[in-house]
Amino acid sequence: MEDDEEAQLSAASPLREPLLRRSAPNNTSQVAIVGAKLCPIESLDYEIIENDFFKPEWDWRSQGKFEMFQYISMKWTLCFLVGLFAGLVGFFNNLAVENIAGYKFVITSNMMLARSFGRAFGVFAVSNFALTLFSSLITDFISPTAAGSGIPEVKAYLNGVDAPGIFSFRTLLVKIIGNIAAVSSSLYVGKAGPMVHTGACIAALLGQGGSKKYGLTWRWLRFFKNDKDRRDLVTCGSASGISAAFRSPVGGVLFALEEMASWWRSALLWRTFFTTAVVAIVLRALIDVCKSGKCGLFGKGGLIMFDVTSEDSAYHISDVPVVLILGVIGGILGSFYNFVLDKVLRLYNLINEKGRAHKIILACSISIFTSCLLFGLPWFASCRPCPPDASEACPTIGRSGNYKKYQCPPGHYNDLASLFFNTNDDAIKNLFSKNTDDEFHHFSILLFFITSYFLGILSYGIVAPVGLFVPVIVAGASYGRYVGILLGSHTSLNHGLFAVLGSASLLGGSMRMTVSLCVILLELTNNLLLLPLIMLVLLLSKTVADTFNGNIYDIIMKRKGFPYLEAHEEPYMRQLTVSDVVRGPLQFFNGIEKVCDIVHVLQTTGHNGFPVIDEAVSDAPVLFGLVLRSHLIVLLRKKAFLHTPVATGIRAFRHFSADDFAKRGSGKSQRIEDIEISEEEMEMFMDLHPFANTSPYTVVETMSLAKALKLFRETGLRHLLVVPKTSCRSPVVGILTRHDFMPEHILGLHPSLKKSKWKRLRFRVPEFLKLFKAFQISSGGVLV
Amino acid sequence: MEDDEEAQLSAASPLREPLLRRSAPNNTSQVAIVGAKLCPIESLDYEIIENDFFKPEWDWRSQGKFEMFQYISMKWTLCFLVGLFAGLVGFFNNLAVENIAGYKFVITSNMMLARSFGRAFGVFAVSNFALTLFSSLITDFISPTAAGSGIPEVKAYLNGVDAPGIFSFRTLLVKIIGNIAAVSSSLYVGKAGPMVHTGACIAALLGQGGSKKYGLTWRWLRFFKNDKDRRDLVTCGSASGISAAFRSPVGGVLFALEEMASWWRSALLWRTFFTTAVVAIVLRALIDVCKSGKCGLFGKGGLIMFDVTSEDSAYHISDVPVVLILGVIGGILGSFYNFVLDKVLRLYNLINEKGRAHKIILACSISIFTSCLLFGLPWFASCRPCPPDASEACPTIGRSGNYKKYQCPPGHYNDLASLFFNTNDDAIKNLFSKNTDDEFHHFSILLFFITSYFLGILSYGIVAPVGLFVPVIVAGASYGRYVGILLGSHTSLNHGLFAVLGSASLLGGSMRMTVSLCVILLELTNNLLLLPLIMLVLLLSKTVADTFNGNIYDIIMKRKGFPYLEAHEEPYMRQLTVSDVVRGPLQFFNGIEKVCDIVHVLQTTGHNGFPVIDEAVSDAPVLFGLVLRSHLIVLLRKKAFLHTPVATGIRAFRHFSADDFAKRGSGKSQRIEDIEISEEEMEMFMDLHPFANTSPYTVVETMSLAKALKLFRETGLRHLLVVPKTSCRSPVVGILTRHDFMPEHILGLHPSLKKSKWKRLRFRVPEFLKLFKAFQISSGGVLV
Repeated sequence: MEDDEEAQLSAASPLREPLLRRSAPNNTSQVAIVGAKLCPIESLDYEIIENDFFKPEWDWRSQGKFEMFQYISMKWTLCFLVGLFAGLVGFFNNLAVENIAGYKFVITSNMMLARSFGRAFGVFAVSNFALTLFSSLITDFISPTAAGSGIPEVKAYLNGVDAPGIFSFRTLLVKIIGNIAAVSSSLYVGKAGPMVHTGACIAALLGQGGSKKYGLTWRWLRFFKNDKDRRDLVTCGSASGISAAFRSPVGGVLFALEEMASWWRSALLWRTFFTTAVVAIVLRALIDVCKSGKCGLFGKGGLIMFDVTSEDSAYHISDVPVVLILGVIGGILGSFYNFVLDKVLRLYNLINEKGRAHKIILACSISIFTSCLLFGLPWFASCRPCPPDASEACPTIGRSGNYKKYQCPPGHYNDLASLFFNTNDDAIKNLFSKNTDDEFHHFSILLFFITSYFLGILSYGIVAPVGLFVPVIVAGASYGRYVGILLGSHTSLNHGLFAVLGSASLLGGSMRMTVSLCVILLELTNNLLLLPLIMLVLLLSKTVADTFNGNIYDIIMKRKGFPYLEAHEEPYMRQLTVSDVVRGPLQFFNGIEKVCDIVHVLQTTGHNGFPVIDEAVSDAPVLFGLVLRSHLIVLLRKKAFLHTPVATGIRAFRHFSADDFAKRGSGKSQRIEDIEISEEEMEMFMDLHPFANTSPYTVVETMSLAKALKLFRETGLRHLLVVPKTSCRSPVVGILTRHDFMPEHILGLHPSLKKSKWKRLRFRVPEFLKLFKAFQISSGGVLV
Repeated sequence: MEDDEEAQLSAASPLREPLLRRSAPNNTSQVAIVGAKLCPIESLDYEIIENDFFKPEWDWRSQGKFEMFQYISMKWTLCFLVGLFAGLVGFFNNLAVENIAGYKFVITSNMMLARSFGRAFGVFAVSNFALTLFSSLITDFISPTAAGSGIPEVKAYLNGVDAPGIFSFRTLLVKIIGNIAAVSSSLYVGKAGPMVHTGACIAALLGQGGSKKYGLTWRWLRFFKNDKDRRDLVTCGSASGISAAFRSPVGGVLFALEEMASWWRSALLWRTFFTTAVVAIVLRALIDVCKSGKCGLFGKGGLIMFDVTSEDSAYHISDVPVVLILGVIGGILGSFYNFVLDKVLRLYNLINEKGRAHKIILACSISIFTSCLLFGLPWFASCRPCPPDASEACPTIGRSGNYKKYQCPPGHYNDLASLFFNTNDDAIKNLFSKNTDDEFHHFSILLFFITSYFLGILSYGIVAPVGLFVPVIVAGASYGRYVGILLGSHTSLNHGLFAVLGSASLLGGSMRMTVSLCVILLELTNNLLLLPLIMLVLLLSKTVADTFNGNIYDIIMKRKGFPYLEAHEEPYMRQLTVSDVVRGPLQFFNGIEKVCDIVHVLQTTGHNGFPVIDEAVSDAPVLFGLVLRSHLIVLLRKKAFLHTPVATGIRAFRHFSADDFAKRGSGKSQRIEDIEISEEEMEMFMDLHPFANTSPYTVVETMSLAKALKLFRETGLRHLLVVPKTSCRSPVVGILTRHDFMPEHILGLHPSLKKSKWKRLRFRVPEFLKLFKAFQISSGGVLV
């Protein structure tokens, strides 16, 4: 093979030349769309750095029990604070939405009662427009990073991809306020995703602590200035977000485990659980406070559990087939949701790229379109007479309630208005409620399903902090109800239960989670008896949907360009060795290197890790270790230079404290361009030995990519050194980074793999039939 | 240092000499107590083996989509079958226990009604004795491996420790039948642990498939003949066990995740969830069948959910302090439980070692002792008049029910007999039941608590398949009730709720799980509103108990001698390099090796992996790969010998199929002693190149042990090669295995570490006070 010859050649060439083959740039980009902004991204590094300098000083674990006590108590205090703040934010979010949206509906409903429909529409549309405009303006001007749900960004962070600003304070503020405005503006958007990002933000900010002026905080927080502890905190934060959004503590833990985290330990389970327990208790206490009626319109609406408990929610084995069909169709609808959303996002990206004005106009047009639909569609529904045995006033006069009067004559209600002309939370509650089988006409439910399904898709991509959970639940609930109505007397299940199962199926088909969604739905509906049915629906809809496309968050993450590292390898990675993908030119340093050489390399390359190679006394050079760009920059900034090229040993540490090398918070790293070095200094030397990681993980060049990926992913590396098979050549032949494992990069290098049979199994319909045939033939053959 | 000098010396010596230093044997033992039997144990190997032979043939993933379809459908089918069988076994277990124990209580109760107390005691004690004797006899004679709960064995397996026979068919049978007999014999033992082992057994047996005669099954199962897929199946099996025991599907998944599994992927979550969903549906269907009354005494008792739902289970923030105290004391009680159990197990081990008769006598004495207590203690309780508004017949005439008449006059009941003279499930139900605050006298509850607490401890170590969950729940429930009674009117919570929280606290203090116990208890009581309280209690009791000692299963595992590999390193591992612990003599082979040399090495050492080293054309030898003992034995058995020492290349594969190298089921590996090789063959050669793993993971000798542990643990290795820092010495200096990471081994090599400050943080009371003082001083210092 040509490649191997080149490798041999380069191995024989003198060491100062780039050690590696092709110098083509990496095929995957180092930027991604974060929120609504194009940002450079970086990998995080979870490797334990071992060298003479860090060992005694950084390794606080060796400093005795008091440090360990500090660390442990700080860890738990931070978790407590994350839970506390996430609970407070979750409550505040609900309070604000319930009051803003509530007063809007009260005012317009009163106008409707006075039969001034035009004015009602005016007020409704204008307030929605203003809220959406406000939300998109603050997002775009203050923190474009806050746009969208934030779950893809947090998930990528937990996978080891860092983007500047995702956890900044302004992102947090915009996320909270923008989401309140967007949800209050009657758009079909959710609050769960933004709450996850909010929780993660709170956690990251708390872990960073204040600035240096708060001595106390800062000293105790020194243990958290590394990627690993920050990752653990962010995991707890994302769990607390979900538990605050749905008041679902166990569901939050499971969500973080199933969907968000790429690395998980049992200890983390316990800490995450503690965080969500705090959230649950904070919410409970605040709701107790609100029971006295001091919270405005809050109380009946948001944050309550949907009550599907009823005697008739019993079910039997005979109900299972119906549930199976519901799950299968829900899976198809869910994967279609993902498919369309992907197309819409691609279109929106094109619009958003054109500039600020386009983004804002897009958001506002969606708002106007939504207002028109919400106000206009109920007119198509015929008025229904109030049921004589209604459990509540009919028609409802206040804000919430099942029976909206809308344009109907007295004693009648408009069933479509009960769904459209309401907050999403209330619409879900209406759909989930028991003993309301006759409340809705099948045409109304169908119309509502179609509208909410597509409005949810259209509303997601706008420049505002908006989530996906609630719209999917709304659409799913109406789908489930519709199935219930269609089946009529053929089933004994009530329609509220159908709505819950419908939501489960659409969520499963779109988000592809199982255990966490199941528990979230159980905690929402407070009915454990539904468990086996919900499990079944989720499993089916996920299985069906998985044959068509991927998880919605993975699709969005791919569209945004995050280099997400999957836990499992692509089949073709077993056919390639690491030397097939590693590419150069490999830059390295000698143990004692000239300052100008280091500066030159840092300025001309974007690499973040460099092997340090010692020309040993014997003939063969030796790999001493790996030095990081960030550490080199610290050394340059501190001007730790030598006049003569001799090893410094212990003297080198004099100028440094451990904190100099501590990893700064997200996106705060220093750049080489900011450092000024004089001509004279350029000619001096630096001893890299004390600062290089002396025991980097290595793999042999003949290892398959799949096996190297396992090491890279499981131990959370940023750089993986590739060493040659035969020991007396150059001691290192390349460095693998996250991008080298990206399928796009590999398929770019080896285009022939694209057409190969070694691709992930994802059936399209004709393939499935072919396989089924093959299966028949095979088993037939064996049986004969 | 002396060590380094030795290493230098050995490196300079000719290659055929052992490469490494000390030849002292490994300090940790290669045997462990499995069940009640001393067995040799082996490590499992999850490394991807890459060599010329396995690559094309074994790697079925490269064989196209049909194989992949086979694999995936087989995977799900197996999960379905595991769930189905676990559900059936769980149901059968309950049915049998309810009927055997039920008829026993019916007969004795009838005798009590006829006031022939002596005969009643006779029947009671003899039937208990016979059942215990039967259980311990079949355990000891047929499968001693089945003794105990089995959770430690399964947990060790999932951590990579294999013991022969833990998943054999006879173990399965004994586990099921022995557990039914033991539980029915009124011992204070549980069924959850044995169910977990049963589930794991079913999974492992299904994965192994039938013998070769069932062609179809066998061919499709070929993908599962490796440690990794077997591990996944066993994980699903253990989850299905818990979900069958408690009818708690989500709790089962979380239990497997939190307590059992050492490696976890999100894909596994989904599959485990599917398995437990099947269990839940099977149980539901069977219970539907039993509703018609065809299942004897089954129906009112076991497998029902404990009903703690009631209007008055509401609680407020003001109830929290009480709950906190409950949690703290529960934590102390739980850790004391572990402490005493450990001592008792040590004693029992001494007794059991003395031979079969001693084991049986021990089990029978416990049974007689238990019978005496259960029958005798209720006589100390005073008879209480039946409440006028009792919701059920008082005194109860049948088997279950809250009001046992026992020796009391008509119109009265014996509250202690309602607890003692009942199955454990019914006792729990009585304790958990609502609106029974006045049913029990505080003296009765205290007596019951003390008795059940210590009977649970005494009953665990006998030679029978018995679990720990139920006795802990019983003791915890009575503890909680007692606290409730003591508080009297100072709290608004009802005593049933106190019982639930008491169980939670004792479980948390003993088993140290959080999320999974929380969900199991929620699913048992079917009351989601308890969630925040249960969370709080569990977190507190676990935290408190963790300061004293470890998790009960870890204690038992340590007592049994399993080399369990923790995910986190001990602090002193950061101070040691891998060359400080790796020890020799290192045995290796040349690429082409003489048969007699191989046979000699295999016979004289117990190693399971050997480096293959090529004397290259250049001066330095090259590490070619790692060859496994099991593969060498296959090669020897197949007599793949060469007359001349030349490389065979592709010809070597002619004699072999992939299945020859497939890993056999648990404990079925072949031994070198079974292979006969003639004198002539001994002089021939073997080419090891095609069969050695060419890309083993390696670490440099200067890496810290902590960092090497991370690689070893995360990627699930059995052998980790240590390579020298300088490249031109011998290419490998040692092999790290599981035992090299065991604290006992390391502390044996470096006794000075024992007294060092670098030990895990576990407070004893005086230390805690010292720390608290240090904390005060420090924060004071900062604040001033």
